[in-house]
Amino acid sequence: MQIIVQKFGGTSVATSELIKNVARRVVQTKEKGYDVVVVVSARGHTTDELLELAESVSPHPPERELDMLLATGEQVSIALLAMAIHELGYQVVSFTGYQAGIYTDKAHTKARILRVEPDRILRELKAGKIVVVAGFQGVTEDLEITTLGRGGSDTTAVALAAALKAQICEIYTDVDGVYTADPRVVEKPLKLDFVSYEEMLELASLGALVLQPRAVEFAKHYQVPLHVRSSFNQHEGTRVEEATKMEEYRLVSGIAHDLNVAKIGLFNVPDRPGIAKQIFKALADEHINVDMIIQSWMRDGRNDISFTVTRNDLHKALPVVERVANEIGASGVAYNDRVAKVSIVGAGMVTNPGVAAAMFEALADEGINIEMISTSEIKISCVIAEDQAIKAVRALHAKFFEQQS
Amino acid sequence: MQIIVQKFGGTSVATSELIKNVARRVVQTKEKGYDVVVVVSARGHTTDELLELAESVSPHPPERELDMLLATGEQVSIALLAMAIHELGYQVVSFTGYQAGIYTDKAHTKARILRVEPDRILRELKAGKIVVVAGFQGVTEDLEITTLGRGGSDTTAVALAAALKAQICEIYTDVDGVYTADPRVVEKPLKLDFVSYEEMLELASLGALVLQPRAVEFAKHYQVPLHVRSSFNQHEGTRVEEATKMEEYRLVSGIAHDLNVAKIGLFNVPDRPGIAKQIFKALADEHINVDMIIQSWMRDGRNDISFTVTRNDLHKALPVVERVANEIGASGVAYNDRVAKVSIVGAGMVTNPGVAAAMFEALADEGINIEMISTSEIKISCVIAEDQAIKAVRALHAKFFEQQS
Repeated sequence: MQIIVQKFGGTSVATSELIKNVARRVVQTKEKGYDVVVVVSARGHTTDELLELAESVSPHPPERELDMLLATGEQVSIALLAMAIHELGYQVVSFTGYQAGIYTDKAHTKARILRVEPDRILRELKAGKIVVVAGFQGVTEDLEITTLGRGGSDTTAVALAAALKAQICEIYTDVDGVYTADPRVVEKPLKLDFVSYEEMLELASLGALVLQPRAVEFAKHYQVPLHVRSSFNQHEGTRVEEATKMEEYRLVSGIAHDLNVAKIGLFNVPDRPGIAKQIFKALADEHINVDMIIQSWMRDGRNDISFTVTRNDLHKALPVVERVANEIGASGVAYNDRVAKVSIVGAGMVTNPGVAAAMFEALADEGINIEMISTSEIKISCVIAEDQAIKAVRALHAKFFEQQS
Repeated sequence: MQIIVQKFGGTSVATSELIKNVARRVVQTKEKGYDVVVVVSARGHTTDELLELAESVSPHPPERELDMLLATGEQVSIALLAMAIHELGYQVVSFTGYQAGIYTDKAHTKARILRVEPDRILRELKAGKIVVVAGFQGVTEDLEITTLGRGGSDTTAVALAAALKAQICEIYTDVDGVYTADPRVVEKPLKLDFVSYEEMLELASLGALVLQPRAVEFAKHYQVPLHVRSSFNQHEGTRVEEATKMEEYRLVSGIAHDLNVAKIGLFNVPDRPGIAKQIFKALADEHINVDMIIQSWMRDGRNDISFTVTRNDLHKALPVVERVANEIGASGVAYNDRVAKVSIVGAGMVTNPGVAAAMFEALADEGINIEMISTSEIKISCVIAEDQAIKAVRALHAKFFEQQS
């Protein structure tokens, strides 16, 4: 029998009524003749409430004990969902991370899944049961409870789908799928029927957070087809799969934007091997994540290097950059935290040199100045002034989607 | 190093401040040079809230899933207490039932502990850590989560103390120890310094519920000394241990009363072998617990048999008794649910024939009519009218305690 893995997030199981709604969805799939494995997150704001509780006892609790605490959130969800499914007259069994055989490394609060031993789940499916698994959690070889970090339930679902060789992994959420732009910014974004893993990765990491990037990477690696869809209606959502499987390529799949950006520039950096390493190693040592890195054409044996970080990392990054600038003899450091990044993403653009020009044209037509540009095979990103970001997204969406039809 | 097991109930960990208070108590014991294992229950009303949550999803949830749900209550407590102990600068580790090696049978919601594998706890104690264990829960051989039923945390603590060969098992509660009578009834009851396992069993099962009877049986079987004391002050509480170890015997240790009593009588029961079996087997088959059973002197080849049940079982018991009365040819059935049971308990009374007479005298002096009498080696119980129960307890307390001094 074909297996389907269905993942429901915290908002989908926040109340008893919603849990019953999820139970009905699960049972519908079972009725269609599939074996169903359901992955659920903690209900509503449970995780935040547990974190507050921890805070009230200890400002910096040991991470092992934090995992012990947080793992209860999903355990409550699986028990309640199993009860609701049982109430509809179906055989069902719930599993915690360790019962489901989800083994992780020992990195408490941000553990990575090492392997899944699905024997027990397969046995229960064979016995005709629906299996409900706690997302977000696993167990180490020593039976220590671990959690996978925020959004880890997506990763749990994909890992289970891979281990169970599921036909598809359905990710239920509160939107209908993946859109060509943020619906809060663009009036009528288009829902994408298909998107490739790579495009989804670029869209997700650029702020369209319907799917955890880690889960998408996992899905790409194990070639697990995903289906992102709404838990509140029966519409087809967006399928995420290998680009080669898609019937037609789009030039551009979506417009992403990110307002949590600050840019830092180092001027007149000497052109010697190892200079870039020295700068970015120093930042990595402080656990500062650097996003775009741009090094311009060398003039007179000296370069300008600029890069972006998240705004909350800016004040951690600046003293590091000042220190390194001194060490290497750069002439100065500047920063600006009133910038934003807009990007177009599309698997088709690699073979289509006109896309970048079309993007720059759309921005120019609106009088938007481009401060930095960075490109990859499936993405072009521009840093612009923050107060022009919304206008830029709308202009790009009009250019690539509203004129196409 | 000597091991002490300390058990704290739900009211002792209900708030963050109380959890910090428990942490300080635990650390004090560690500072005295003991290895400490702490057992905690779910905070405050957590278990009731989880039961309500289950009810809102399914009126009759599967017991396996109920255990999955309820076990989270204690898991939250152990994580928070471990954080609070860590905050005081001590090494600590928390364990769920399965991590602590508490193996039970498969009777979900009322599982019995089969064995404890304390290797992991001993290893952590040896490493200098305080170990915090979730009460009330265990795991089957198949890694299924079970719970031990209400008050199961006491049993967890005693089982751990037995497996770890602990010097003592301290049961922290919101009263100072075991008293000679219910403080809500008698103005100045005396706190007992020592009480035997048997006396504690009689006192506990008669309504003085500071300790779960199962935990006391367990402690008696494995000869684990108990110390019932308050978590809110440093007073010595009541030690529960083998009677032979006590320095002096008291004639009477306590006065217990139970208002949740109904009596049922069968008249003119034929005097044949197997008749009693027929009556009480029929009640047992309906899971009705019978307490006192009294069969009077045979007259003319026929007996009267009377017994007591809890009031909530009365309406389940009556049709069963009517049916059996018909089958065996008894002349009639009567019942009364406005009765109460008062008892005196004391290991010393077995060698002292005057105790029963003194009890009956005290009741007679108050004009209280005795409806049934039942005696064991350490207990004499009388069924009387419900509205005279309080007066009876006060009279008996005056007789056996207030006149002794």
